[in-house]
Amino acid sequence: MTRSAPIISVDAMGADHGPSIAVEGIGHILRRRPESQAKFLLHGDEAQIGPMLEQADALTRERTTLLHTDSEVRMTDKPSEAVRRSRGSSMWNSLVSVKNGEADVVVSAGNTGALMAISKVVLRMKKGVHRPAISASWPTPRGHTVVLDVGANVECGPSQLVEFAIMGEAFHRAVHGSSEPTVGLLNVGQEELKGNDTVRAADRLIRDAGIDFKYHGFVEGDDISLGITDVVVTDGFSGNIALKTAEGAVKLVGHWMRESFTSSLSAKIGAAFLSMGGLDHLRSKLDPRSINGGVLLGLNGMVVKSHGGTDSEGFATALGLGIDMAGSGFLTEIEANLARLIAAGEAQSQAAQ
Amino acid sequence: MTRSAPIISVDAMGADHGPSIAVEGIGHILRRRPESQAKFLLHGDEAQIGPMLEQADALTRERTTLLHTDSEVRMTDKPSEAVRRSRGSSMWNSLVSVKNGEADVVVSAGNTGALMAISKVVLRMKKGVHRPAISASWPTPRGHTVVLDVGANVECGPSQLVEFAIMGEAFHRAVHGSSEPTVGLLNVGQEELKGNDTVRAADRLIRDAGIDFKYHGFVEGDDISLGITDVVVTDGFSGNIALKTAEGAVKLVGHWMRESFTSSLSAKIGAAFLSMGGLDHLRSKLDPRSINGGVLLGLNGMVVKSHGGTDSEGFATALGLGIDMAGSGFLTEIEANLARLIAAGEAQSQAAQ
Repeated sequence: MTRSAPIISVDAMGADHGPSIAVEGIGHILRRRPESQAKFLLHGDEAQIGPMLEQADALTRERTTLLHTDSEVRMTDKPSEAVRRSRGSSMWNSLVSVKNGEADVVVSAGNTGALMAISKVVLRMKKGVHRPAISASWPTPRGHTVVLDVGANVECGPSQLVEFAIMGEAFHRAVHGSSEPTVGLLNVGQEELKGNDTVRAADRLIRDAGIDFKYHGFVEGDDISLGITDVVVTDGFSGNIALKTAEGAVKLVGHWMRESFTSSLSAKIGAAFLSMGGLDHLRSKLDPRSINGGVLLGLNGMVVKSHGGTDSEGFATALGLGIDMAGSGFLTEIEANLARLIAAGEAQSQAAQ
Repeated sequence: MTRSAPIISVDAMGADHGPSIAVEGIGHILRRRPESQAKFLLHGDEAQIGPMLEQADALTRERTTLLHTDSEVRMTDKPSEAVRRSRGSSMWNSLVSVKNGEADVVVSAGNTGALMAISKVVLRMKKGVHRPAISASWPTPRGHTVVLDVGANVECGPSQLVEFAIMGEAFHRAVHGSSEPTVGLLNVGQEELKGNDTVRAADRLIRDAGIDFKYHGFVEGDDISLGITDVVVTDGFSGNIALKTAEGAVKLVGHWMRESFTSSLSAKIGAAFLSMGGLDHLRSKLDPRSINGGVLLGLNGMVVKSHGGTDSEGFATALGLGIDMAGSGFLTEIEANLARLIAAGEAQSQAAQ
């Protein structure tokens, strides 16, 4: 459901650093995106959040509705326990708001496994999807590459990888605006003989399924940041390792950069000139808070997962992604893609009879 | 075998850009490491390399012995074909020099699969090792983290991961000089319940084997560049993806950096001051040629694999790694570690009887 003014349902209790992250995050995103007209349903403990909201700026107060919840999902809760015990928690209720059509998208910084499990119960999966995936939008010189799965499914069969391709392609078209996104399958080499059985089988499945999207074939790790394809498909084990390893490498470069910028007087003068010039732009590019927000794909409803340990600026980025998604045709795109997948499967099984 | 002056056996025909890479690489490393006294056995086509050597500087000519070979392994050869057909090739003969004790270490930029397969035939594997691994030395703020396997074994069982831990720990002690290297197992989370069956089983095996090295437990992707442990163990699929994804991320940061340094006049002035200060240091840190060289572990002999597409500066880095290894006690260290692994296995099977 899309409206002219997006309504974002927020799990205010999910962030490691408490509900102030969500309240201040709303303030930041309203200043960054004054044109959006976004409104927020804030699910959480009134006793904690009420006073924070009273201290907030007028626009935040005007656009936010606080909805009290008695409990919250903890970071240590196992997904199965969370599903049984979390009815009425801030995470649960934030999802119910989307299910009931009161909001367009959920944003939560809570426990990933619990969010995945509760989302499946509250929103249910789309027809044709066996398990949801988490996607990350990876910045590249050409725009964004959508990488999935980045951690929801540590072991995936070939048909799941095909579903991820379908969902990622629809997501890129809807949110990043490509008319014909290209899709690559992450592997350790580009030749057809390389890799493990699962990726080789997925490669054949995609080619044989006759789904009319632009399939590039295998890509390697360095192709992600180069933006060789718009979508990169992988299992949640390799995807999570790729995402976190890249984050670590970028932090390492940041460390070396600070070292060089303070290594001598002329370096310090240079850094001072640069900060008038392009350094702030570079800093914001390298700031993990500027790319915060994974998206749960495959559900009847849109869910954004923020890093648990983010600050309010990072949470604002995840809220901004929610606003983009609310205004996009993502759910329609993904349904159209899944219908093509199901049709291709039926055509194949008829041909086999 | 170590000598006061290391002897490096070079497969001169392996690099994508031809044998000039090896000839010029020798010149570069002799200038970078004048104290090493290194000598080189250069295996390759005399008709091509002879004239290049005649053009080379006096020191390169003095330290290099050219050994003619009629054939070479091509990048497109499958490992099994290469083993059958490559006897007498530059790759094969460079390995034979180490087997016969004429050289301490082999350096090749040739086809990885073929190098692995031919190394197993010529040098054979150490007792206790089922398959060799390729390790990469990853720069961190604390020194180097040894990551293995980065591409030799795309599917690994738990006991193989334990062997990688044993070999990586010995390698770090011998080449990077730690007295007690710490070992981590790459996973998607630090909790014991996270990850797939293989890494959980390997975690238990390492804990139960009673091998007295410093086992840290699970690490995540971002821990590699932070240098949380000295050794990071993973299967060749995830390890290759991690390595290449990090390379891609570092290239992306380089792209953004060039963008910022030329985005305005003050940025250009800043970059000019920086180039007097610390920028060259940063550039060399970010230069993939400065970290070129994977090492094949688990063989009765030392083998360094250079990137195929490297230039002569990058090849010199791989030669430098070979010089470091020649002067190290790596083969002794790894044998001591493997003996501990075998002893631990025997103690366990006796206890089980």
